[in-house]
Amino acid sequence: MSDIADVAKRLLLGRPVRSDRLGSTLLPKRIALPVFASDALSSVAYAPDEILLTLAVAGLAATTISPWVGLGVVVVLLVVVASYRQNVHAYPSGGGDYEVATTNLGPKAGLGVASALLVDYVLTVAVSISSASQYASSAIPALRGHESTAAVVAVVLLTVINLRGVRESGTFFAIPTYCFMALIGLMVVVGSVRYFAGTLPQAESAQFELVPAAAFDQGLTGIAGAFLLARAFASGCAALTGVEAISNGVPAFKKPKSRNAATTLALLGGISATMVLSILLLAQATGVHYAEDPHTQLTLNGQPLPEGYNQHPTIGQLAEAVFQGFPVAFYAVSAITGLILVLAANTAFNGFPVLGSILAKDGFLPRQLHTRGDRLAFSNGIITLAVAAIVLIVAFDAEVTRLIQLYIVGVFVSFTLSQLGMIKHWTRELRTEPDPASRVRMKRSRVINAVGFGCTSVVLVIVLITKFTHGAWITLCAMGVLFVLMRGIHMHYDRVRDELALDDVASARALPSRVHAIVLVSKVHKPTMRALAYARASRPSQLEAVTVGVDQDDVADLTRQWEALDLPVPLRVLDSPFREISRPILKYVRSVRRESPRDLVVVYIPEYVVGHWWEQLLHNQSALRLKGRLLFTPGVVVASVPWQLASSEGQTGLEGESYVDGRLRRF
Amino acid sequence: MSDIADVAKRLLLGRPVRSDRLGSTLLPKRIALPVFASDALSSVAYAPDEILLTLAVAGLAATTISPWVGLGVVVVLLVVVASYRQNVHAYPSGGGDYEVATTNLGPKAGLGVASALLVDYVLTVAVSISSASQYASSAIPALRGHESTAAVVAVVLLTVINLRGVRESGTFFAIPTYCFMALIGLMVVVGSVRYFAGTLPQAESAQFELVPAAAFDQGLTGIAGAFLLARAFASGCAALTGVEAISNGVPAFKKPKSRNAATTLALLGGISATMVLSILLLAQATGVHYAEDPHTQLTLNGQPLPEGYNQHPTIGQLAEAVFQGFPVAFYAVSAITGLILVLAANTAFNGFPVLGSILAKDGFLPRQLHTRGDRLAFSNGIITLAVAAIVLIVAFDAEVTRLIQLYIVGVFVSFTLSQLGMIKHWTRELRTEPDPASRVRMKRSRVINAVGFGCTSVVLVIVLITKFTHGAWITLCAMGVLFVLMRGIHMHYDRVRDELALDDVASARALPSRVHAIVLVSKVHKPTMRALAYARASRPSQLEAVTVGVDQDDVADLTRQWEALDLPVPLRVLDSPFREISRPILKYVRSVRRESPRDLVVVYIPEYVVGHWWEQLLHNQSALRLKGRLLFTPGVVVASVPWQLASSEGQTGLEGESYVDGRLRRF
Repeated sequence: MSDIADVAKRLLLGRPVRSDRLGSTLLPKRIALPVFASDALSSVAYAPDEILLTLAVAGLAATTISPWVGLGVVVVLLVVVASYRQNVHAYPSGGGDYEVATTNLGPKAGLGVASALLVDYVLTVAVSISSASQYASSAIPALRGHESTAAVVAVVLLTVINLRGVRESGTFFAIPTYCFMALIGLMVVVGSVRYFAGTLPQAESAQFELVPAAAFDQGLTGIAGAFLLARAFASGCAALTGVEAISNGVPAFKKPKSRNAATTLALLGGISATMVLSILLLAQATGVHYAEDPHTQLTLNGQPLPEGYNQHPTIGQLAEAVFQGFPVAFYAVSAITGLILVLAANTAFNGFPVLGSILAKDGFLPRQLHTRGDRLAFSNGIITLAVAAIVLIVAFDAEVTRLIQLYIVGVFVSFTLSQLGMIKHWTRELRTEPDPASRVRMKRSRVINAVGFGCTSVVLVIVLITKFTHGAWITLCAMGVLFVLMRGIHMHYDRVRDELALDDVASARALPSRVHAIVLVSKVHKPTMRALAYARASRPSQLEAVTVGVDQDDVADLTRQWEALDLPVPLRVLDSPFREISRPILKYVRSVRRESPRDLVVVYIPEYVVGHWWEQLLHNQSALRLKGRLLFTPGVVVASVPWQLASSEGQTGLEGESYVDGRLRRF
Repeated sequence: MSDIADVAKRLLLGRPVRSDRLGSTLLPKRIALPVFASDALSSVAYAPDEILLTLAVAGLAATTISPWVGLGVVVVLLVVVASYRQNVHAYPSGGGDYEVATTNLGPKAGLGVASALLVDYVLTVAVSISSASQYASSAIPALRGHESTAAVVAVVLLTVINLRGVRESGTFFAIPTYCFMALIGLMVVVGSVRYFAGTLPQAESAQFELVPAAAFDQGLTGIAGAFLLARAFASGCAALTGVEAISNGVPAFKKPKSRNAATTLALLGGISATMVLSILLLAQATGVHYAEDPHTQLTLNGQPLPEGYNQHPTIGQLAEAVFQGFPVAFYAVSAITGLILVLAANTAFNGFPVLGSILAKDGFLPRQLHTRGDRLAFSNGIITLAVAAIVLIVAFDAEVTRLIQLYIVGVFVSFTLSQLGMIKHWTRELRTEPDPASRVRMKRSRVINAVGFGCTSVVLVIVLITKFTHGAWITLCAMGVLFVLMRGIHMHYDRVRDELALDDVASARALPSRVHAIVLVSKVHKPTMRALAYARASRPSQLEAVTVGVDQDDVADLTRQWEALDLPVPLRVLDSPFREISRPILKYVRSVRRESPRDLVVVYIPEYVVGHWWEQLLHNQSALRLKGRLLFTPGVVVASVPWQLASSEGQTGLEGESYVDGRLRRF
């Protein structure tokens, strides 16, 4: 059984990888770009849609402003890319924003950034996968109404792929990312050519009319108009997420790590900005109408839309229009966009476990998150991320427009704190740097980071104001909870460390004067004899066998057999008025300790090692209970003497799993 | 926290009871009657209803036959009571049918009886509680539609009461049982007087007409008619369940146990028979019409019944009619009947854990079912029963008529096998008994048991034929599964016992030649030093400290600190190419074992003892994993050296719960 599980695990996850092969999993730029850039690139699949549908509330005239909103987003994007190129050079260790904030602004700011990023990684997965399943159901009508199930399945698949390790992820993800870039590029080029040739067809939705909401019958005017514009901009800023992923992923790059990461970042910024703008311009040229609820916001000749109308995402509508006459183009673009969104979620699968592991190393998260699985991947972090994302997807029914309200708050918190930290960083560096050329470079960097800080903090405020009641409060709460939780864990580890610190070396050398060994006996059989033999082999100062008398006849039997064996070890029978096993033994051990407090008491417990989980239910229950309780008594050592039952044979403890202590254990 | 849990447990379950007070929980007859008889008595709450509604399918004329069907049931009841009075005398140990069948027909027959009884105990709870919630919803219209929820709540309450122990159950249950007898008795007397005085009013449902099913428009004729009659009789035999409960409960009686149990059995038979017959006769006198689905089977002046018609159970309708003018009587009878049904379920709560414990002692069920909880009750069995009954109630939506199809199969299997066993018992006894007076008594007993066997086997065949497709197959399947499961458990325990048997006393005395002690070190802190001191105190032949090198810097740090301490113990660093902790240690331990196979290897693992479950998540994870895997290697002892963290202070291991090995442990 364990063999099958092992084979299945190997098939799914591949062979284990040695530590010294870690170097060979480093990524060249051509692989790093698709791995780390898919997040930012893929957001063109939903960011333009969100700009359009937010503006659509104010009617047709308002949507004509969308390329300008897009331009605003692109400006912020380029500023942020420029800023992060400074980060990547200054902090190449992969701590990213967390490290920058911790080093320059103190541990609390660092922890704030970490909370924000953890939450946002989860949202990256939830939003990307939900958007992907929206694309899938737009192309495959049979999926409509099952978006949420499809999204959960996709997250599970991604989890398995990532448990295989980062290297295979790289090659696996490169091809579709390049296909996506090529296909969108082709669409933009063909669309532009046909536009200037005057032969660009109209989009399917161009025939509809937009019905503005009552508050906006005058168009985008007044405070409400400004607010809506700001909200469209804030939603569009989803295009910026993923930029920070590279700064957390620098150690995964080939050398020179920082330079390669910075170049990749610049490439990514350029491609991403071009795509967002092109798509918004093409959408305007083809007359795309896009609404959150097409059946109430859109009309056809003054009438509601036909029942079965399936509103395709903007990119889908563009592909239909630009490649009119080639219906396969729509399916190709939808498929590759859906796929790229799944890969975008993969960025989070790369970033989250690394950050989690760093936080675990710093004592902010349970230490097991720092342990590597046997595929060089941080398995625990990957699984945590997947579970959290699935919860969000199910809770929000995989609706992108609702999830996007929670999104990017965290990213901009960390952008802003990180840039503030970088300003302090350069200021501090400048204090000690004598070389004039370096000083000029540093001052330039500081200016870039200052602009970045100004820019991102303004966006953060806009995001908070326009999205707070729409869902951003959930994100803030989650961040707050994580912050408090991680501080609590840190304080706990600190307290324990202080408690355990070796304050007095002399006392560390003090030895207990004598050893009082107790062998627990329930029956006279091989496991008991083994425990007894082992106890005798360790030559304690005092040795006795102890049994608990629950049933008179059993005790009489046992005593008779014991005497027949004629062993040099006395058998003591403890009374058990309440028919319990643990309590009388505990009380006896405590009385031994009281009589000679400087002695060490070693309790030998015979234990069965079984091969199947269900056997565990049939054995060891009293032994387990007792073991746990004995440990509460100072000066007591609990020695488990295993007896390997035949069913455990062949299991060496070296395989992938074992059943011990009633729980399934895996490597 | 553990204090609060302890106090709460004491409030709910009372103080623990000493073994030597077990005698004081024995029951006098006046308490034993209500405790063990409530099952059989309470079945008058549904058995007459089932007879009436089964016959109702064939129209009005058919229902006039119901007292004759009732008479048939009563005859069988009296035969069975007479038979069981023999059992109680011959087997007073409480093994009941299981013991009789095992002793006389062999272990397989015994196990068959046990499976049948276990299933039937579960059904007793499910049927009784479902019927009780039907009575409750008949009196309290607000409960209608929530019968299933009410039933589950009732089972949970019963579970808590029974976890308190059998003695309190006795006094607690006596009063309502006697009230029930008094109230039903009063109703029968008043009803009879009014009937003979000619002033007995008609029941509410007397005004309706019964619409026979198409197959029965000629009344109860042909094979279909005979089959329906047989089915009505089979359902009525539900009145017999509970008789065997006394034979399983003999040890709970005051001395002379057998005589008292036999007397109680006779009393119970008489009362039960009188009630069933009286109710069926009164129902006929008052013209009760009772149908499974009143809205299709009953009409009023040829029209369907009014929408809100609430069909009261027969006893409720009788109370309304007999005590016309005192509406409170209906509520009193409904309330006390509902209550007595809840108490009937309690019979199973008395019987099931006793049987489970006997089976566990014989190695057919996991041994923990044999352990007593701290209230002298067999807590594990009680909880198992409750869970199984809740599953049935939820699955059948608490509908008595559907559940009753599954019922009594098990009881009659065990009746039949038990009576067959008794015939063999007397035949064997007669072979060695010289005293003529005794021989006469034995022969008389054998005749009684033979009549019982004939009677119950005929009923069993009728039950199987008439109910198989209606649900009895489910019961048979469950019995089969239990049978196979228990045989499997028994074979497993047998195999393990053989494996562990001490075949060679000399080898049991052989001692390992030398002890090689290994102290696991992750950091230099107090727990490590304690483990080291304890290891040194046991003066092993060889002692070394071992650490796993995952991170170069950490190892260098550790080595430096170790050298600074200047201990007489060398520190060995194991390479970990896969960044694992367990595997390198396992491999090293195995290599030590290979080099000197006759040595004993003792691995000392420092372990934190924490006070809160969440702390367990933050510590010990690698230690736990390692411990489990080390046990698979023969010749290795795992010694846990606990370090009690401050948070564990005040917890002595003696309280009600502790958090160790990551699991909540309770006494």
